Amino acid sequence: MNKRKIISIIGKIILIEAALMVPALLLALYYGDGDAPAFVCTIIPAIIIGLLFSSVKQSDKRMSSRDGYFIVAAAWIIISLIGALPLYLAGGFPSYWNALFEIVSGFTTTGASVLAEPAQLGHGVLFWRSFTHWIGGMGVLVFVLMVTPMENDNSMHLVRAEVPGPTAGKLVPRMRTTSMILYGIYTVMTLVLIILLIGGKMPVFDSFCIAFGTAGTGGFAVSSAGIAGYHSAYIEIVLGIFMLLFGVNFNVYHLLLLRKVKDVVKSEEVKVYFGIVLFATVAITVNTFDRLTGIGTTIRNAFFQVSSIMTTSGFATVDFEVWPEFSKHTLVLLMIIGACAGSTGGGFKVSRVIILFKAFLAEIRHIITPKAVITVRVDGKPVDKETLNSTKIYAAAYLILVCMFTWLISLDGKDMTTNLTAVLACFNNIGPGLALVGPMANYSVYSDWAQVLLSVAMLTGRLEIFPMFLLFAKSTHDR
Amino acid sequence: MNKRKIISIIGKIILIEAALMVPALLLALYYGDGDAPAFVCTIIPAIIIGLLFSSVKQSDKRMSSRDGYFIVAAAWIIISLIGALPLYLAGGFPSYWNALFEIVSGFTTTGASVLAEPAQLGHGVLFWRSFTHWIGGMGVLVFVLMVTPMENDNSMHLVRAEVPGPTAGKLVPRMRTTSMILYGIYTVMTLVLIILLIGGKMPVFDSFCIAFGTAGTGGFAVSSAGIAGYHSAYIEIVLGIFMLLFGVNFNVYHLLLLRKVKDVVKSEEVKVYFGIVLFATVAITVNTFDRLTGIGTTIRNAFFQVSSIMTTSGFATVDFEVWPEFSKHTLVLLMIIGACAGSTGGGFKVSRVIILFKAFLAEIRHIITPKAVITVRVDGKPVDKETLNSTKIYAAAYLILVCMFTWLISLDGKDMTTNLTAVLACFNNIGPGLALVGPMANYSVYSDWAQVLLSVAMLTGRLEIFPMFLLFAKSTHDR
Repeated sequence: MNKRKIISIIGKIILIEAALMVPALLLALYYGDGDAPAFVCTIIPAIIIGLLFSSVKQSDKRMSSRDGYFIVAAAWIIISLIGALPLYLAGGFPSYWNALFEIVSGFTTTGASVLAEPAQLGHGVLFWRSFTHWIGGMGVLVFVLMVTPMENDNSMHLVRAEVPGPTAGKLVPRMRTTSMILYGIYTVMTLVLIILLIGGKMPVFDSFCIAFGTAGTGGFAVSSAGIAGYHSAYIEIVLGIFMLLFGVNFNVYHLLLLRKVKDVVKSEEVKVYFGIVLFATVAITVNTFDRLTGIGTTIRNAFFQVSSIMTTSGFATVDFEVWPEFSKHTLVLLMIIGACAGSTGGGFKVSRVIILFKAFLAEIRHIITPKAVITVRVDGKPVDKETLNSTKIYAAAYLILVCMFTWLISLDGKDMTTNLTAVLACFNNIGPGLALVGPMANYSVYSDWAQVLLSVAMLTGRLEIFPMFLLFAKSTHDR
Repeated sequence: MNKRKIISIIGKIILIEAALMVPALLLALYYGDGDAPAFVCTIIPAIIIGLLFSSVKQSDKRMSSRDGYFIVAAAWIIISLIGALPLYLAGGFPSYWNALFEIVSGFTTTGASVLAEPAQLGHGVLFWRSFTHWIGGMGVLVFVLMVTPMENDNSMHLVRAEVPGPTAGKLVPRMRTTSMILYGIYTVMTLVLIILLIGGKMPVFDSFCIAFGTAGTGGFAVSSAGIAGYHSAYIEIVLGIFMLLFGVNFNVYHLLLLRKVKDVVKSEEVKVYFGIVLFATVAITVNTFDRLTGIGTTIRNAFFQVSSIMTTSGFATVDFEVWPEFSKHTLVLLMIIGACAGSTGGGFKVSRVIILFKAFLAEIRHIITPKAVITVRVDGKPVDKETLNSTKIYAAAYLILVCMFTWLISLDGKDMTTNLTAVLACFNNIGPGLALVGPMANYSVYSDWAQVLLSVAMLTGRLEIFPMFLLFAKSTHDR
């Protein structure tokens, strides 16, 4: 491994994190809730360590694919460890592990919280917590690449390891340009949303925090009442639509900018994604319909929860824990599927479901006509062997890991529905699960060690399994 | 498709099923419980239809791989439809669909029952119900091949479609010989078990029924008290060991007969299989230990349930529904893993878990050294691409189907733990699940349509997915 290069990049990342904390510090000073010292005590040591690390002289500039995975995994762990400090130092979290869970949940855009009432936190901490959703949504390394010049090959390795889904990193050949385009679209969409929310009479501070949570498909609210607390159908509809938009593959927006509408219309992933949302909304509307609430409210509630869970945001406007079993099961299915590849959403990803489904059909055709050469096609183009193979391996690893996490966490003594949906909600970066971790509950029911385990699940899910395992792989095969 | 050939083989299968009902008819006459007419009314029409079908002249003797899959799927459905008739006609089941669920559960060696008290059934029906476990365990088509001469290529197609696991059908080149060896070992082991049970003072009738249920890793008992009703530690230990033995790949016994002990010792599947049983027994013993019951009983209970669930038999001597969550979660994990390939047990199969795990490690190595050629090896031999690919597809299809079945059955309104474990217990051919379908409950909680859906799950699981889907695949690509 290229150790010097790795240390230097991680140093830069720590410096960038320190810089990203400055807005929260300024807000803390402005509101005067007493959380400013917590930020100062984090930012100063972070700058010192960051400068030390980044000043390491680099002998060799080439980086391997493995180095890319290693940096991504290490970076996510380190920014979480540092990012949790202000939360812990400002008080409000019983232990450092709770604060770590909360900030991992932030960066991974999970939105699972251990707090019964987030509104008790200072404004600085509250802002930082939601801001991590925004940074984590598009990717920490993608952000780093935008502000740091780097050789194209090296940055390619990093993006490939961080951006979710099987079709990542094929936008444009120049990685730095890619990062800028992605973050440009992301920023504009977030700003539009902030304006729409302020227009809907949401407080300005809340508008920023909620917009960050929506853009990153995170789901942290600023009070225990959540989105329902604004009592506004307008806000619910705006958020429902924007969650859905942030769950779309960002390549689509890039193609729209280039006026390649034909390519967008051809995209099977987008069609299937909206198809599932429509189908689930109708199914849940029929299943939960109640004359007292009326059809309009029923559709709005169904659409909001479907959009929130499918995109792995995790906002909730109703307590779906009390919905009929079929609707709850439908939500769990959406939890597993997740959003589009190359979006800010988590989950297994719609494109992977499509590839697997087609690979299954191909296997059936293969049995019928063993000698025919059968290719799996998506969007009219054949899927290359590498992608096909890694998608299948991903499915197997997903199955194994969900089983293992659920099994391990059962040592904490909770029931199976709680454990399974907690693991699915954390691994797929959603937020709320069912039963004891339902939308009106929080993750403080789990003990400290279980919260650390769930934090690992969130990171493993966000980074799509492989980087986390490569962290522990022997480096003897290297070079 | 070779329609004439298919009809003729199915005709033979129906005739063989009629013949297999004769022992039950004789027992019905001997005990005089009044269930003899139900058998007569099934056997006579079955013989007529069987003779008609099997007399169809065959123009072309060659069969395709697809034909093999089609025959296996069609045969399993038809023998279930016919096999359910005596149960329904003799009374005791409210509807034909309940009787169908019961007999599908029999043939697929699931052992899930809709009866609160099986002892109320006549001896003939009770025997037939358990006997289907024994026939289904080694495979209906494997039985047919043993008694019917057939070209080697054709029989190969059938065995490949029916025998579970990725390593099927590689025992000896001659298929008929293979069937005979398999059934020979199977019969001898069953006879030894019957003698041991009778020696343990189990009633002779019960000894036969329980031995059939053990050999096929089925799990039907003859009374609601189940195995606990015999109040015999000896019987529990004998059954615990024999369930485990029937869950081993039968190739192992063949190798032992040929004195190739070295090859057996080399088998990773067998080592991992016994390793998991040992580990789970220890974990559950520690987790459920209670001074009142004592260490001996705790170990015995843990071992029996582990052996029963891992081999997908489904007998129970304690109500594990009241065990701590960790032990229950461990059992669910064992449910998914299942027994060895080429055994009478169901589930995902230990060998598939091994292959997937190694494929995952290979993918990690591939990321570290992208240019190296990495082969997945089991038992020291490289796994061929075909097997590797189909195992991965199987995992994906397994994940998709378990999700879909659980989702569909939630329309019946039961809670998630019940639905998920019912689907896992049926799909993996185990029997009992948790919550409403726990070891002391039965499947009558589900409505008729849900029982039919679970019957489809049992058949899909037993035949390992593909044959059931090929039944509906278009035949235009054929030839």
